Amino acid sequence: MSRPVVVWFTGLPCSGKTTLAAETDRRLRELGLATSLLDGDLIRRTVSADLGYSDADRTEQARRAAALAAEEARRGKTVLVALLSPRRTSRAAARETIGDFVEVYVRCPLEVCEARDVKGMYRQARQGTLKDFTGVGAPYEAPERPEITLDTDQEDVPACVGKVIAYLEKAGHLTLSKG
Amino acid sequence: MSRPVVVWFTGLPCSGKTTLAAETDRRLRELGLATSLLDGDLIRRTVSADLGYSDADRTEQARRAAALAAEEARRGKTVLVALLSPRRTSRAAARETIGDFVEVYVRCPLEVCEARDVKGMYRQARQGTLKDFTGVGAPYEAPERPEITLDTDQEDVPACVGKVIAYLEKAGHLTLSKG
Repeated sequence: MSRPVVVWFTGLPCSGKTTLAAETDRRLRELGLATSLLDGDLIRRTVSADLGYSDADRTEQARRAAALAAEEARRGKTVLVALLSPRRTSRAAARETIGDFVEVYVRCPLEVCEARDVKGMYRQARQGTLKDFTGVGAPYEAPERPEITLDTDQEDVPACVGKVIAYLEKAGHLTLSKG
Repeated sequence: MSRPVVVWFTGLPCSGKTTLAAETDRRLRELGLATSLLDGDLIRRTVSADLGYSDADRTEQARRAAALAAEEARRGKTVLVALLSPRRTSRAAARETIGDFVEVYVRCPLEVCEARDVKGMYRQARQGTLKDFTGVGAPYEAPERPEITLDTDQEDVPACVGKVIAYLEKAGHLTLSKG
């Protein structure tokens, strides 16, 4: 019925990665798929409790996320990963590890992300209290050829998730039963 | 025009603490107040990077949050704290440290929080991957006499924030200019 795949949401803080991955996860489970949702914050609370936010630690965080995702996919799960993963090389390595990999660029202008500033982190980063914050004190390298690009400043959650579902269906990762 | 105060949002994971604190912060700034938003995740990324999720570490996290909030209030800021702070003793200590303290119980049934499960953490906690997760593997002690209780399963964000603003005005922490 479906070929396991890892859908990897990357983007700036407050771009909408977690929201979109979680909603895609919910929709796929409704459609009867076995899924696994791996969020960066969740990984940091478990297997990456030893890591910080330096460039090297972020690379290691992405490596572990990719290894976890690959393992879940091997068990037949469709995996949704929401991870900042600011480095192109990290995402290329994840693609290499995983194989069936769909990179979703959650694209949103920095000023829009910063206006959302859900947890007040952009403000602290601008004030210098929060170092190495991606988009302010640390770089984000946008994907060059992502499978999917979602413009969260222009399209709402259902529209964005609809694009992901449509892509997965077209790519043979999901066979929707037509009611 | 206003007497500085610390508004402390406590509640289960996914109850709505961050959303409500951030929206209250936004509204208060619109009203011309100097504010400071202290979110648990932000504090964990900065001054509490050495702490985990044991009972002792959570107590220390709440102690640091209270100290930071007290300092900001001393500088004339109205402070919004969004912190799980599952222990009554921690919140009582924060009240003691801070003085002008408004405890907001973000009340939401566990099953509703768990259904939201924004980052997939409840699921991982049920599967045993995520230890010490409040509400599943670790206790949450509900406030006994909070200044404000917000039922986020019944009322939407504007209604909840409206209650906080109304309380602050009544308590003399905010003098709204009547247009």
